[in-house]
Amino acid sequence: MTAPILAVPLDRAYRLLNHGPTVLVSARHGGVDNVMAAAWCCALDFSPPKLTVVLDRVTATRGMIEASGVFAIQVPTVAQAALTKALGSTSLGEDPAKLARAGVRLFDQPGHAVPLVEGCSAWLSCRLLPEPHIQDAHDLFVAEVTGAWADARVFAEGRWTFETADPSLRSLHYVAGGRFYATGEAIDVGEDAP
Amino acid sequence: MTAPILAVPLDRAYRLLNHGPTVLVSARHGGVDNVMAAAWCCALDFSPPKLTVVLDRVTATRGMIEASGVFAIQVPTVAQAALTKALGSTSLGEDPAKLARAGVRLFDQPGHAVPLVEGCSAWLSCRLLPEPHIQDAHDLFVAEVTGAWADARVFAEGRWTFETADPSLRSLHYVAGGRFYATGEAIDVGEDAP
Repeated sequence: MTAPILAVPLDRAYRLLNHGPTVLVSARHGGVDNVMAAAWCCALDFSPPKLTVVLDRVTATRGMIEASGVFAIQVPTVAQAALTKALGSTSLGEDPAKLARAGVRLFDQPGHAVPLVEGCSAWLSCRLLPEPHIQDAHDLFVAEVTGAWADARVFAEGRWTFETADPSLRSLHYVAGGRFYATGEAIDVGEDAP
Repeated sequence: MTAPILAVPLDRAYRLLNHGPTVLVSARHGGVDNVMAAAWCCALDFSPPKLTVVLDRVTATRGMIEASGVFAIQVPTVAQAALTKALGSTSLGEDPAKLARAGVRLFDQPGHAVPLVEGCSAWLSCRLLPEPHIQDAHDLFVAEVTGAWADARVFAEGRWTFETADPSLRSLHYVAGGRFYATGEAIDVGEDAP
């Protein structure tokens, strides 16, 4: 890793997702690591931080998360648009070399049994909070965030710094048909202390 | 209304939320209309389209939605950043003139008993799918989208057209402390038919 990765206080972790980026979901089970893309991930609570993510039952990642009870959410960058698209288009079941083919390199954070994708701007280590009914009825999973980190070049002192960071570090917002929008310009309203 | 508002086919409605915008949540009950801002709203399914939204129990809007069973989600624009911030900072309980003070004007779509906010770029009329456990445990609400419309200047033929529309029509992505990011530049990857 060349980027400086710093821990994010857990009560600021919701800010890593609050702008609605497309994310990567990673999991480890039975000696296998996998990563998928997901546009439907959302903050759910501030402290302790929680989030929701929709995991279709056709995904290999879902079964791994149900088995291990842990996973990671990470925020890919503009520089990773092709990687993100590739991870959202192929299943590990169809292509066992999926990660290598997409150019994914993984790293670990001590104490967290989840693979993390190099080059993202933020990472959230998560513990599944089992909710069998909504998992079954809506493919909807609830988790508590147990660790958070960010690339200090684009998230510092509890805030994204997209407006001063390199544009390649901006987040991705997927729509459909291979089209993403990057995070754009900052707009400040009012006088709140952040 | 000066903008041309067109119906969006329900199987394309998820695209109105897929890029993760901050939304406005509106409700009508007992002769009262209300609108709040929410950063935690997310698509949940394609067809029929469903979504999730987090509604804190302190909000007046939540009680109205629990009572009426219907609400609307709408996508505010860069031009509405101050309005959106105001609607997220004040409760109807504290300020009965909240909507007027924020500059909100409402309109209706025939057949949908929900107030819609003028000037947004997209509107989704929703029917609550009661899930008492997650509403109570996580403040998380699931709904089916029963009608969708968009401003044809920025969403046409099932696609956002941010890259050619006026920048004031871009969506807002709230972080914290009065800071939003606007939706930014388009990034196209791959050859999928959208």
